[in-house]
Amino acid sequence: MNKNKLFPQINGILHGGDYNAEQWLDRPDILAKDIEMMKEAGMTSATLGVFSWSAYEPVEGEYHFDWLKDVMDNLYNAGIYTILATPSGGKPAWMAQKYPEIRRVDSYDVREHQGVRENHCMSSPVYREKVANIIRQLHAHVGNHPGLIMWHVSNELGGECYCRLCVKRFQNYLAEKFDHDINKLNKAWWTTFWSHSYNSFSQIEPPYKNGDFSIMGLNLEWKRFTTWNMNDYMKSEITLLRELTPEIPITTNFMQLYDGLDYRPMAKELDVISWDSYPRFHNDYESLADVMGQNTFDHAVMRSMKKDKPFMLMESAPGLVNWHPYNKLKRPGIHKLFSYNAIACGSDTVQYFQWRKGRGSFEQYHGAVVDHLGTNDTRIFKEVAALGAELDGLSEITGTLIRSKVALLFDWDNMWAIDDVKALGQESKKYPETCMSVYKELTKRGVDVDVIASDEPLDDYDVVVAPMLYMLRDGAAESLAAFVKRGGQLLSTYFTGYVDKDQLCILGGFPGNGLADVFGIISEEIDTLYPSDRNSVSFTDGSSCELRDYAEILRVGTADVLGTYDSDFYAGNAAVTVNSYGEGKAYYVAARIDYSKLGEIMEQMMVNAGIAIKDLPDGVQYHCRYADDGTAYGFYLNNTNEPQTISEVHGTDIQTKNIFDGKMELAPFGVSIIKENN
Amino acid sequence: MNKNKLFPQINGILHGGDYNAEQWLDRPDILAKDIEMMKEAGMTSATLGVFSWSAYEPVEGEYHFDWLKDVMDNLYNAGIYTILATPSGGKPAWMAQKYPEIRRVDSYDVREHQGVRENHCMSSPVYREKVANIIRQLHAHVGNHPGLIMWHVSNELGGECYCRLCVKRFQNYLAEKFDHDINKLNKAWWTTFWSHSYNSFSQIEPPYKNGDFSIMGLNLEWKRFTTWNMNDYMKSEITLLRELTPEIPITTNFMQLYDGLDYRPMAKELDVISWDSYPRFHNDYESLADVMGQNTFDHAVMRSMKKDKPFMLMESAPGLVNWHPYNKLKRPGIHKLFSYNAIACGSDTVQYFQWRKGRGSFEQYHGAVVDHLGTNDTRIFKEVAALGAELDGLSEITGTLIRSKVALLFDWDNMWAIDDVKALGQESKKYPETCMSVYKELTKRGVDVDVIASDEPLDDYDVVVAPMLYMLRDGAAESLAAFVKRGGQLLSTYFTGYVDKDQLCILGGFPGNGLADVFGIISEEIDTLYPSDRNSVSFTDGSSCELRDYAEILRVGTADVLGTYDSDFYAGNAAVTVNSYGEGKAYYVAARIDYSKLGEIMEQMMVNAGIAIKDLPDGVQYHCRYADDGTAYGFYLNNTNEPQTISEVHGTDIQTKNIFDGKMELAPFGVSIIKENN
Amino acid sequence: MNKNKLFPQINGILHGGDYNAEQWLDRPDILAKDIEMMKEAGMTSATLGVFSWSAYEPVEGEYHFDWLKDVMDNLYNAGIYTILATPSGGKPAWMAQKYPEIRRVDSYDVREHQGVRENHCMSSPVYREKVANIIRQLHAHVGNHPGLIMWHVSNELGGECYCRLCVKRFQNYLAEKFDHDINKLNKAWWTTFWSHSYNSFSQIEPPYKNGDFSIMGLNLEWKRFTTWNMNDYMKSEITLLRELTPEIPITTNFMQLYDGLDYRPMAKELDVISWDSYPRFHNDYESLADVMGQNTFDHAVMRSMKKDKPFMLMESAPGLVNWHPYNKLKRPGIHKLFSYNAIACGSDTVQYFQWRKGRGSFEQYHGAVVDHLGTNDTRIFKEVAALGAELDGLSEITGTLIRSKVALLFDWDNMWAIDDVKALGQESKKYPETCMSVYKELTKRGVDVDVIASDEPLDDYDVVVAPMLYMLRDGAAESLAAFVKRGGQLLSTYFTGYVDKDQLCILGGFPGNGLADVFGIISEEIDTLYPSDRNSVSFTDGSSCELRDYAEILRVGTADVLGTYDSDFYAGNAAVTVNSYGEGKAYYVAARIDYSKLGEIMEQMMVNAGIAIKDLPDGVQYHCRYADDGTAYGFYLNNTNEPQTISEVHGTDIQTKNIFDGKMELAPFGVSIIKENN
Repeated sequence: MNKNKLFPQINGILHGGDYNAEQWLDRPDILAKDIEMMKEAGMTSATLGVFSWSAYEPVEGEYHFDWLKDVMDNLYNAGIYTILATPSGGKPAWMAQKYPEIRRVDSYDVREHQGVRENHCMSSPVYREKVANIIRQLHAHVGNHPGLIMWHVSNELGGECYCRLCVKRFQNYLAEKFDHDINKLNKAWWTTFWSHSYNSFSQIEPPYKNGDFSIMGLNLEWKRFTTWNMNDYMKSEITLLRELTPEIPITTNFMQLYDGLDYRPMAKELDVISWDSYPRFHNDYESLADVMGQNTFDHAVMRSMKKDKPFMLMESAPGLVNWHPYNKLKRPGIHKLFSYNAIACGSDTVQYFQWRKGRGSFEQYHGAVVDHLGTNDTRIFKEVAALGAELDGLSEITGTLIRSKVALLFDWDNMWAIDDVKALGQESKKYPETCMSVYKELTKRGVDVDVIASDEPLDDYDVVVAPMLYMLRDGAAESLAAFVKRGGQLLSTYFTGYVDKDQLCILGGFPGNGLADVFGIISEEIDTLYPSDRNSVSFTDGSSCELRDYAEILRVGTADVLGTYDSDFYAGNAAVTVNSYGEGKAYYVAARIDYSKLGEIMEQMMVNAGIAIKDLPDGVQYHCRYADDGTAYGFYLNNTNEPQTISEVHGTDIQTKNIFDGKMELAPFGVSIIKENN
Repeated sequence: MNKNKLFPQINGILHGGDYNAEQWLDRPDILAKDIEMMKEAGMTSATLGVFSWSAYEPVEGEYHFDWLKDVMDNLYNAGIYTILATPSGGKPAWMAQKYPEIRRVDSYDVREHQGVRENHCMSSPVYREKVANIIRQLHAHVGNHPGLIMWHVSNELGGECYCRLCVKRFQNYLAEKFDHDINKLNKAWWTTFWSHSYNSFSQIEPPYKNGDFSIMGLNLEWKRFTTWNMNDYMKSEITLLRELTPEIPITTNFMQLYDGLDYRPMAKELDVISWDSYPRFHNDYESLADVMGQNTFDHAVMRSMKKDKPFMLMESAPGLVNWHPYNKLKRPGIHKLFSYNAIACGSDTVQYFQWRKGRGSFEQYHGAVVDHLGTNDTRIFKEVAALGAELDGLSEITGTLIRSKVALLFDWDNMWAIDDVKALGQESKKYPETCMSVYKELTKRGVDVDVIASDEPLDDYDVVVAPMLYMLRDGAAESLAAFVKRGGQLLSTYFTGYVDKDQLCILGGFPGNGLADVFGIISEEIDTLYPSDRNSVSFTDGSSCELRDYAEILRVGTADVLGTYDSDFYAGNAAVTVNSYGEGKAYYVAARIDYSKLGEIMEQMMVNAGIAIKDLPDGVQYHCRYADDGTAYGFYLNNTNEPQTISEVHGTDIQTKNIFDGKMELAPFGVSIIKENN
Repeated sequence: MNKNKLFPQINGILHGGDYNAEQWLDRPDILAKDIEMMKEAGMTSATLGVFSWSAYEPVEGEYHFDWLKDVMDNLYNAGIYTILATPSGGKPAWMAQKYPEIRRVDSYDVREHQGVRENHCMSSPVYREKVANIIRQLHAHVGNHPGLIMWHVSNELGGECYCRLCVKRFQNYLAEKFDHDINKLNKAWWTTFWSHSYNSFSQIEPPYKNGDFSIMGLNLEWKRFTTWNMNDYMKSEITLLRELTPEIPITTNFMQLYDGLDYRPMAKELDVISWDSYPRFHNDYESLADVMGQNTFDHAVMRSMKKDKPFMLMESAPGLVNWHPYNKLKRPGIHKLFSYNAIACGSDTVQYFQWRKGRGSFEQYHGAVVDHLGTNDTRIFKEVAALGAELDGLSEITGTLIRSKVALLFDWDNMWAIDDVKALGQESKKYPETCMSVYKELTKRGVDVDVIASDEPLDDYDVVVAPMLYMLRDGAAESLAAFVKRGGQLLSTYFTGYVDKDQLCILGGFPGNGLADVFGIISEEIDTLYPSDRNSVSFTDGSSCELRDYAEILRVGTADVLGTYDSDFYAGNAAVTVNSYGEGKAYYVAARIDYSKLGEIMEQMMVNAGIAIKDLPDGVQYHCRYADDGTAYGFYLNNTNEPQTISEVHGTDIQTKNIFDGKMELAPFGVSIIKENN
C-alpha cells in the first residue's frame, strides 16, 4: 500500500456522496432503502450533516442527535464510512432572528435578511461561539463513532461581509500589515491620487459599491483580507476539531478557481484538499475535449496545493446540474470518463452531490444517484453502480502521486489585480482563460503540469510558464531569474511584471524587478486591439500565426528575435524573443498569438529541458501517477466519441489485464490505465 | 334582447373611454368641445375619475365634487353614460407625506417615496379607511346619478408590498393555511434543505431580494399571498360599493396575463370582467396574424373567467401607445380589425385609453381619440368615428356568448412555479408562450377554446389540452383521469405532473398522481437542448417534424408510440404516444415539437371528439357567438393585407345584408359578421 | 498681438498639462527631472493642485504649502507658468468622516461612503466654508506668485445630490420659479395626471429612483436645478477668487456634452472656457474622419459659449486613455493632428492629463507625457516634444477667432426632454448624434458653424439649422420667425416644436407657437420605425434617399413639397418641404433621411445665403481663424492616412513658408496653416 493512501479503511477509490438523511426522517422506509441501494451502487462513504444544524438544534439549546447516530450506525454496518460536515454552512432561522449580527452586510452596507446559505459573518463572536458549541455537541454524540473517517468543515466557504465588525477587523489587519504606520499604507496605495490619503487606519472603509472603489490597493487588500478573515474563521473550527479528534483528518470543499478566496493560505490549514467539480458538458461553445481540458487544469490547481497527497473529488453531479443556463443531460459514458479524469489527475475519491434528490427547494432537480422515481434501474443509477464496481478494484492506484517537472504560475491576487486594472480591454483581459489555454497546450502533449503560486520554490521544475504575470510578488522576479540562471526554461507573455504586490507600477521599464534583463527586452507600450482587429507574427523559421487582443511594442536588448509583427505601425518590431541568461533560456511572447503556436514554442522548451512529450491523437489525454516504488500508472482518456489509436503504449491494462507493446485502441469515451513497463 | 346584455341602457356595442376631465377644468371651452366631439365619434360611455383623488380632495378633508357632477350631467344630457372609477389607484401627495405607512416597501425592504401610481400598501388600515371615506363622499355626490352605469374599482391593480404590516399578514395567512402547525409548513416547503426550518410562523419573511429566495414553496406562497391580499383589499372596496349601490355592477381592469396576480380568485368578486389590451402591432419579430392570435388567446383567458357573460375591452389605444420600445403608428384599418376581434371573442364594449391626450406627464403621447391638434379631421378621429357608427348597429350581438367544447388548461401558479424552477433552460422555459402557440393552432382551425384553471370542472368539454402542466393542483390529476375515462380527448406535454401544489416533487415517476397510468408512460429524464441544438421526430404515419429545447426520455407502458426520436443517444425512443384509457384517449408529446405538427395531432383529437373544424386561409380567424335562441353569429377577420376567400359560408352579413351560400371574399384587414343559417 | 490673446506671458500656443507633484514629494530626483524634461518637451504651463487638498491639509487645520511654493518656483524659474486648481474636486477622508453631510446622497436616498471624487454635496454650508478656507490659505501662500496665470475651479464638476439640504434648496428654487404659487407648478407639470397634484412646495421630492420619475416637468426641473445649484456652488468659489486676485482669470474644465449640467449658465461666470477632450480614436465602429468630425462639433459647442475669445483644451491624453472599453494606442501622428484640430477650432492651448503617470490607483495607465519607464526617448514623449517645438512658433495665431454665419441650435434641456420623453423609439432618439451628423455635413463643406442655444440672438447668422427642436423655449419660435422674415435660411426636422419649456404639449398643431406658419405645414402624426424598417423619399429634382427611424405625416399648407414618401400608407405624402416666409426660406425635413441628402439641402441654403463652400476631399477638414486685422488663417487637416490634394489654396504656409496658389498636397494625417491672401 502506498504510504499516501488517504483512507486505509477503504478498499479501492473511495466512492461516496452527500447524504441529506435529515430530509427523510419521516420516511424510515426510504432511509432503509438508501442503505440497500448504496451497497448496490458500490458506495463506500457518505457525507453527512452538511446542512443539519436545524435538525440538530431546532430550538436554541435543544439538541437532537439520535437520528444522526442511527444513520451512521446503519451505514457503518453496511460497510459505508461517514465524512461528517460541521453544519456552519447553514445558520438556523432562530439564530438569524435572535442574533442579527451573524447575518452579513452587503457591499452597499445593508444587512441581509436570513436566507440561502454560506452567509454568516466570519467575524461574529456570537456565530463562532455557536459553531463551537454545536461542534462540541456533535463530537459528544458521534465524535468517536468508528464510521467517522473525516471532518468536512462547513461547505463551499465564500462571500464577503461589510459589517462594522468586519470593517474593524479589516482596519486592524491593515494596521498590522503596514506596521501601524498610515503613511506606509498611503504610499503603497498611492492615495495622494484624487486626495485619498488617510490620516488614521480608522478612516479606512472597505470598497463599498457606493464608496471608494477607485484605489486598486484597497480593492486588492480587501480581497486579501476576506481570504484572511475566512481562513481565520475556518481555523476557529479546525482548531477545535483537532483538539477534539486529533486523529481525524480535516478538509473543506473548494470551488474551482473561485474568485472570492485565495485557496492557497487555506490549503495550508487542511489535511486534505477536496473540491466540487461541475463542468458544463455538451455546451454550445466548446468541444468535450475542451471541457475536459479545463477540468484537467482545475484538478491541477487543486492537486498542486498539496503535492504529497492525493486530493478528493468531494462533489460532482451523477447526472445533470440544475443551475447552468441550459441543463443538458450528461450523455452516457461521460460520467465514467469524467470520474476517471479526476483519478488520473490525482484524486483518490469519486463523490457526488448528492445521493438522493430532495423533493423540494433550490436543488430539487440537481442530479443525484437516486431520482425522484426512486428505482435502481434508471440510466444514472446503473452508470454509477457500474463505476462503483470498477473503483473498488483500483486499490493499487490509491496513494500514488503525479510528478511534474513543469510548472505554470497562477496567482489569485494576480487574477484580482488584472480583473480590477483600469487598462487594456474590459472584456478581453481573460487571465484565467489564458492560463487554461496555455495549460491545454501542455496537456495535449501528455505533460503533467503543476499550477503553483509565483513565489513558491521552483527547485523541482525544469520548465516554468508564467502567462500574464502582471503582478510581481516579493521575491518572484528574483526567483525566476535564479531559475533561468541555473538552467531553467522560462516563458512569459505580454502584461508581465508591471506592478508590485500593492499594484504600484514599477518604474524604469516593464517587465520590472530585473526581469527585463532576464528576458533581454523592455516593453515600451501595450496595444489593445478591438475584437475585430487582427495582426500576425512571422517567425524566423518561416512560420507565422495570427494574434489578437494585445500586442506589446518591445525594445530589444540582449534577446534574439524569433518573430516580428507583420502589420500596423509596429510592423517589423519584435513580437517573440528568446534570451540566454545564465545556463537557461527566457522566452518572451509579447502578443496574444494563437495558442497552437505558443504550444510549439513550449514544446521547444521541453526539448531543451529533456522532458518527454507524448504524441497523442486529438482529444486524447494522458496522465501518469507514480507509486512509492516508482511504478508508473499511465491513464489514457478518450474525450471523443470516436475510437482512437494510441501508439507507443508499453505495459499492462490493470483492469482488462491486456498487455500492450505498441499500439492501443481506445473506445469512444474510453479509459485505460496502463501499469507501464519500466 | 339577449339576457346577458351588460348595459340595457345602451344601444349596440358600448363605445367609450377614459375621460380625464379634471385635467381641463380651467378650459371650459375644451370640456364643451369634448361633448360635441364625443357625440360625433359615437361614444356612448366615458370612464371618469380614474385618478381624480387630488381633484376631489386636494387637501385632507376638503372636498370638490361639483366639477364631477357637472361633467356627468353634460355627458348624460348628450346620451353618454358614466363608468365611474374609485380613485384609489393614485394616492394624493399630502396623504403619502402625512401617512408614510401607505407607501409600499420594496423587495429590498426599502420604503418607496411618493410617486407614480398603483402603489399603496394593500394592508394599510389607514389607506383602507381613506379609500372608504372617499368612496362614501363620491357616492354621496354622484352615487345616484342616472348616468352612472358601472363602478370601476381602482385601476390596473398590481405590485407587491414587503412592509411590516404585509409581512405580519403573510405570517397570519400562512399560519391559517398550515393549520397553525409550523412543521406542516416545514414539510411542505422542504425546509430541512440548507437548514431552513422555521420553528415559528413569526420567523418567516417574504422572499426579499437580499433574503431567502431559495425556497420554492415560500416564493410561490408569497405570490399567492399577494393575490390574496390584493383581493382582500379589492373586496374592501367592493363590499362598500355593494352596500352603497347594490344595483350598480362592478368591475376592475385586468392586464393580460399579468404575472403578479392570479386573476381568477379576483374575478369571482367582480360582476363583469374587463381588461386593457395593448398589442405590439407591426413589430419586427412576428406577423400581424401572430399578434392577433396572441390577442385572441388573451381574450379567451378573460372570457373564460365568466363564461356566462360578455366581457369588456376596458382600454385600448385608438392610435399608438407611448411605452413600447418602438411606438409605431397603428396602420389604417387595424383599429377596426382589432376592435372587432375583441367583439368576436366575446367583448360587448370597445373602450379607449383615452378620450383626449393630456398635455403633460408620462402618457402625453399615448394615443387618444382627440390629439393635441384638437380637431375632428385627424386620421385617428375619423377611424374611431367610423367604428362608432358601426358599433351602434350591432345590438343584436350584445349579450351573445361563445360556447366551447375545447379547453386549454392554464394556471397562474403553474406559471410562477415554472418561472421559478431551478431546472431546464433559463431562457427557454416559455410556458405562457407555449400555451399561446398551442392556442393559435386551435384558432387556425376555427375552434373557440376556453382557457381555464386545471382544477375547474371539465364537464362541458370533449377535448382538453394541458401544455407543460408542471404543477398538479389538488384533484387536478384525478379530474383529468376521470375526464379521459368518460371519453375525453386529453393532450399533455413534457414537463407535466412533476410537483404538487407546494412544488414538492412527486415520488415514484412523472407525470405523477396517477397520470402515468392515464398516459401509459413514465418520463425518466428530461433533456434540455441548447438553443442551437435540434432533433427530430419520425411518426408511424411517415411524417416527421423538428424539435427543440426539451425532450423527455420515456418508459412506455400501455401507450402506443406515435413518433420516435431520430437522433442523439435516445434515438428510437418514444417521443409522442397515445394511450387508450377508459373511453377516451390520452396523448403525450414528450418534446417541444413544431407547433404545426402539434396542431395536426390536436386536429385528430377534434375528429375523435366530433368537433367541427374550419378550413380557413392563413391569417384569417373565425369565432362564433351564440344568442339565447341559439342563433350563431360567425365572425370572420382577415388579419392580412391581402384579400382572402373563405369557403363554406352560409348566412347573412348583418352589416352589409349580403347573403352567402359558399364562398365569401374578405377585403384586406376586412371583417364580416355572418348570421349563420341553421 | 491680437487683443484676445489669453496669456500674454506665453509665446505661441500654451503647452501644458496636469502636474500632480504632490505624488512625488518623496522623490526630489524625479521632481528635478520633471523640470528638465518639461523644458525639453516645450512645456510652458503646468496645472497644479487639482487633487491636493490632503497634501495641503492632511489633518484638519494643519497646513502644508511649502512644497507647492517650491514647485511653482522651480517651474517659474524654468519659464513654466502655473494654472492653479482649487482642490475642491477631492475631499479629504478626515473631512468626510467628521462631517458626513458633505457626502452626497444618491438617487435611492442613500448617503454615499467616502471615495472616488467630484462628489461633495453642492449645498453643504460646511463644505463651502471648508473650501473657502482652503482657498484663502492657498491664496495666502501662493496667490501672488509671479508664475500664477490662471485659476482652475475644482475639476470636472458634475453629478447630483439628493440629500435633505439639496431637497430643501430644490423646493425653494421651485417656489421662487413659480412665484410661490403651487398651482402654477401643478399646471406647468400637469400634475392632475395620476393624481400627482401638490398642495405645498414642501411636498415636492426630487425624482428618486424609488419615487416619482413619471412627471416630465419634475424630471426636467431637477436637471435644471442641479445646474443652478452647481453653478451656485461654483460661484461661491469664483466670488472669493475674484475678491482675492481680481486680475487672475478663472476657468473650470468642462466635459464635452456632459449630460448632467447645462454648461451655458456656468460659462457666463467664467473668464475663459476650457474643456477635456478624450475621443475614441481607432475604434471599430467609425472612421478617424468621423471621430475628428465629432471632435470638431464638441469644440464648436465650447467655442460658441464665448465667441469673443479663444478657448482652452485643458486636458487630452498624450497617448491612450485607460477607461475606454478598449484602450487602443493612439497611432503615430494622431496626437499632432488632434492637437491642431483643437487650435483650428479656436483653442489657444494644448494641454494634457497628465505630465507623468502616477504609480498607482485608478488612472495609473492613463496616457501621460512621461511614462513609468521615465525616459525622454519614448514614442509619446518624442511626439509631444516635437509638437511643443511647433506650438512655440504659432504666436501669430494666438488670439485669432472664428467667424460664423451659420448656427446650429442645440439646447441641453431639449436633450434632457428628448431623453426623457415617453414616445418614439427608446433606442433611436439620438438627439445629440443627430446634431453631430448634421454638423459633420456642414464641416465637410468647409463651413465653420456656431452651436448655440435656441434663445440666443440670431443677428449674426444667415443660416440656422435646428434639428429635432422638440422643446420651444420662451421666445425661441418668435426669434426663428423673425429670423426667416428678415431673410434667413432656416431648416428644421421631424420632432420640432412639440412642447413648451415645461414639456407641456402645445395645442393646435406641431410645430407650435407659430412655427407651423413659418414652415407652412402641420405635422399630424409621427411614425416610429423599427430598426429594420426602411422607407425612402423621392425628390422633385429626380433624386431620392433612404430614411429610417422617424417619419412625420404632414398637412401641407403654404409650403412647396420638395420630396415625398415612396412607400407605406403615407406614400406620396410630403416628406421635405420649403416655405417662403417674409424674405427668407424655411425648410422642413419630416423624416430621418440620409445625412448626405440633408447636406445637399443645407448646401442649397448656403447658396441662397451667399455663404462660401469649400470643395474638400473626403476626410479633409478646413477651418479658418481671423486676426484682429482681418488676416485669415486657414487650417487644413488631413484625417486620412492617404495623401490628399487640396485645390484653390491661395496663401502661405506659416510654418513651412511654402506659398500656394492653387493645389496643395497634404501628407497622411498632415496639417497645414495657410495665411490666406486677401
